[in-house]
Amino acid sequence: MSFTIAAHAAAQAYGYPLLIKQLLHTTLTQASQQEIVYADRFRYTYADFYQRVQRLAQALTTLGVGMGDTVAVMDWDSHRYLESYFAVPMMGSVLFNVNVRLSEDQIIYTMNHARPKVLLVNAEFLPVFNDIRAQLESVEHVILLNDGAPQDAAALGMAGEYEALLAASPAQFDFPDFDEHTRATTFYTTGTTGLPKGVFFSHRQLVLHTLSAALGLASNPEHGRLHREDVYMPITPMFHVHAWGIPYIATLLGIKQVYPGRYLPESLLNLIAQEKVTFSQCVPTILHMLLTHPRAKEIDLTGLKMVIGGSALTEGLAHTALARGMDVFVGYGMSETCPIMSLSRLTREQLTQDAAAQIPLRIKTGQAIPLVDLRIVDDNMADLPHNGSRTGEVVARAPWLTQGYLHNPAASDELWAGGYLHTNDIGMMDERGVLQITDRLKDVIKTGGEWISSLELESLLTRHPAVSECAVIAIPDAKWGERPLALVVLKPEQQASADELRAHLRDFAEQGHISRWAVPEHIRFVDALARTSVGKLNKRALREQFVQQSQG
Amino acid sequence: MSFTIAAHAAAQAYGYPLLIKQLLHTTLTQASQQEIVYADRFRYTYADFYQRVQRLAQALTTLGVGMGDTVAVMDWDSHRYLESYFAVPMMGSVLFNVNVRLSEDQIIYTMNHARPKVLLVNAEFLPVFNDIRAQLESVEHVILLNDGAPQDAAALGMAGEYEALLAASPAQFDFPDFDEHTRATTFYTTGTTGLPKGVFFSHRQLVLHTLSAALGLASNPEHGRLHREDVYMPITPMFHVHAWGIPYIATLLGIKQVYPGRYLPESLLNLIAQEKVTFSQCVPTILHMLLTHPRAKEIDLTGLKMVIGGSALTEGLAHTALARGMDVFVGYGMSETCPIMSLSRLTREQLTQDAAAQIPLRIKTGQAIPLVDLRIVDDNMADLPHNGSRTGEVVARAPWLTQGYLHNPAASDELWAGGYLHTNDIGMMDERGVLQITDRLKDVIKTGGEWISSLELESLLTRHPAVSECAVIAIPDAKWGERPLALVVLKPEQQASADELRAHLRDFAEQGHISRWAVPEHIRFVDALARTSVGKLNKRALREQFVQQSQG
Repeated sequence: MSFTIAAHAAAQAYGYPLLIKQLLHTTLTQASQQEIVYADRFRYTYADFYQRVQRLAQALTTLGVGMGDTVAVMDWDSHRYLESYFAVPMMGSVLFNVNVRLSEDQIIYTMNHARPKVLLVNAEFLPVFNDIRAQLESVEHVILLNDGAPQDAAALGMAGEYEALLAASPAQFDFPDFDEHTRATTFYTTGTTGLPKGVFFSHRQLVLHTLSAALGLASNPEHGRLHREDVYMPITPMFHVHAWGIPYIATLLGIKQVYPGRYLPESLLNLIAQEKVTFSQCVPTILHMLLTHPRAKEIDLTGLKMVIGGSALTEGLAHTALARGMDVFVGYGMSETCPIMSLSRLTREQLTQDAAAQIPLRIKTGQAIPLVDLRIVDDNMADLPHNGSRTGEVVARAPWLTQGYLHNPAASDELWAGGYLHTNDIGMMDERGVLQITDRLKDVIKTGGEWISSLELESLLTRHPAVSECAVIAIPDAKWGERPLALVVLKPEQQASADELRAHLRDFAEQGHISRWAVPEHIRFVDALARTSVGKLNKRALREQFVQQSQG
Repeated sequence: MSFTIAAHAAAQAYGYPLLIKQLLHTTLTQASQQEIVYADRFRYTYADFYQRVQRLAQALTTLGVGMGDTVAVMDWDSHRYLESYFAVPMMGSVLFNVNVRLSEDQIIYTMNHARPKVLLVNAEFLPVFNDIRAQLESVEHVILLNDGAPQDAAALGMAGEYEALLAASPAQFDFPDFDEHTRATTFYTTGTTGLPKGVFFSHRQLVLHTLSAALGLASNPEHGRLHREDVYMPITPMFHVHAWGIPYIATLLGIKQVYPGRYLPESLLNLIAQEKVTFSQCVPTILHMLLTHPRAKEIDLTGLKMVIGGSALTEGLAHTALARGMDVFVGYGMSETCPIMSLSRLTREQLTQDAAAQIPLRIKTGQAIPLVDLRIVDDNMADLPHNGSRTGEVVARAPWLTQGYLHNPAASDELWAGGYLHTNDIGMMDERGVLQITDRLKDVIKTGGEWISSLELESLLTRHPAVSECAVIAIPDAKWGERPLALVVLKPEQQASADELRAHLRDFAEQGHISRWAVPEHIRFVDALARTSVGKLNKRALREQFVQQSQG
């Protein structure tokens, strides 16, 4: 294809394609003795890390992996995963991060769609693997990742055990220069339709996301600021949008990194304390789980910087985190956007204000990071005013957004209609460019011709002391078109009636925070809320469950 | 040329070429009301700035400037210069920053080499301009930049006065997308041989330098750290390597910027105090000038972050700056490197040490910024150990190094011999990647941040009838960094005093062949000059012999 050859020629002429390997120059020269930690199992240096990256590339080459081949990984967060983040793309191959929380059917579908040649699988997933193995069409070799008792990989029909294969491979690999548009990673999103859709990112895109997101984090005057002497630990899975790309950022800055393995609240809290973690990231559900765990009381969380994403950070949860001295703030993005597009941030003046004043700023969707062209548009793609109240669809351009969905031109065209990536989020922007997502395009409630924000109702309901969590969905209404239905989980030992909750919301309506007609007449108390594999509220499942009931 | 078309196609496919205009998205959305200040003459907002950038593009278009045309600027540091930093490249044209400190001959040479179609010239340079005007081969239109009494631009044979042209142009310009490899800027370096050599940078290169240098500065834990609430003022000229690229960084981060006009110590100090400047940059000569000025005693310089580059920062000067509470540290680069390649930095632990311990670290050449592949090599391009003592040539790759010298393939090939840019600096690196430049391979003299060509001085001196041969070497100078020392062998039976030789050189300076400040105060008469085995002047031996004497 002439484009590829020409782009390669250009890269040669300018001498420096944007490749993932280039992220390592300064780190290996300046921070070779910095640590990378795998839970309580293993710790080594960046110098050792690079030796193992080279061994892994050699081992994969021996198994026949070359330019353009795909290598799949099923693992918890580990140093091995970080090694594959670098070794696989640096060989010119494609890293496929398998979402291990999907159903077996979905994993089979994504594997046969991405067509990996080699699969690295953690021994803990052997039951799943053995169930699906016969249906994997492309996998030629399997490598066993094992933290437990030794296993005979050959007897399992595998190419070998990861550590044994690395030990048998020389710690030398001449990672080549190639076209920066070469595909580096792929993974699947289960966001909006039944079948998972593959997104994919090039070397150039990952390098540019790394630089811009790092700059977005580092250039904060004080709070939420990432720097070279931080200690980083992800608490969003490495299979999920490269753990938001932050492992690449941490590696570029030569930061100490901690990989926690499987997410067990007590282990996570112990690692934060023992390894002196100062920078992390998670979804609200995980933050809630950490803060309510008994072990949390014994640990000093003061100054722990935590990016919250995946779903809206509620005021109540932000308040609890701030009371513990944590520095929580929101990041915004999605699988299609690599993911970071915006970060909430406070000025130094705003940081002098009390928690009540800070929380509304910290839970905002935030301000775009460098190079992100983020717009709020109407149905004709015309820009809406940045006045903090006018809502429209959020569309974006940035150098690192997925070019489309893998082998799915129709969905790709829809994603990029009009030359901008459509987030399907509804939001508004103020005169300082602060974005606030108010709803999903496909999860909004339209009543009597007016929009109701389900997110806002959820946020206000969780401020009631008896409410643990809630979800608001639309149900059909003969008179108004749609009306909100609030599904509420109460805290253990707490009581509240539907009337009390409505009175709670009417107070906010009287203060002008919401419209009076937004107060839902339908409130149901449930034991739990359906969630997706990554912990987000599964509104589609909730609608399927409760809309039928309400109609039945 | 097929390469250009294909690269353009790639840019389209991925939807986001790296263009200078993309640096403005977040700033115009988030910091539109932030200030840009021009000395004590003018202040306006980023929103206004962008209006004027559009007007300037319109005005230049009206004068016939299009894609690929060159626009030259001769101005002191100003908001107008910043407007041209954006408007000219964003139109697809090339910004040529004219070094106003060159001799008239050199300015004529560079102008006829870069071939600008339009010239923007500050009224203060009219005497120079009128001298050289008749010899400018390519300039079709001249725009007058004027801070003083109104002038009749038409009567001066000019297209108009800058403000009048902007006022007459609509504040609307649709800056197009184009190939990111399009040339954006060019300027000339007088470093190594008699004739100035043009370097040039593409949009992609400037965007990547902006991101990486910003990240290098922002990710410092404490000292030297740049962030969004800083106030920035350059004290290195905007014609000199885009003021080290920091105006682009400051604009990207939406930082308040202050442009001081001509560098007058008292005005600079007053601006620092009045505008609360927190981040700046200069060469050691300027820092010395500022700190020894009487007005400096009355101004609080505490916390002022100052990148020092251009020549070595001495311990004494660093000590004086630290005693005033300033945060000084070294940046390293050159015209060919856009320029930033490394920055000195201290860990938080090192910052707790006293000044005597910090100074050796602050005056080091520093650690490479992200994406810079900086090596110390022997004559065969083999890497030398990073042990803090082994010296070799410093060579580099980075995405933003000049592809070569304009219309000079031979010098370009020499610059990039072996696929790495040769800095012609000799240095060593320690195990933390800290670079220390120890010597220069080639024989040039850097005085007050400007190069003097020893070859040119030698050539002119030997045109004196009494001079047999001569060598010019650099000797250390407390104020200027380095000054030239001319070693002169007279012809037998001939006489000439040092004053006569200086008068001889001043004649050339008055004719515009060399700068006035190139005329050496130090002239010594010797019987013979050390030569190498092949009969070349042995400047290293001469330096060893005479530099020690001059220091003794």
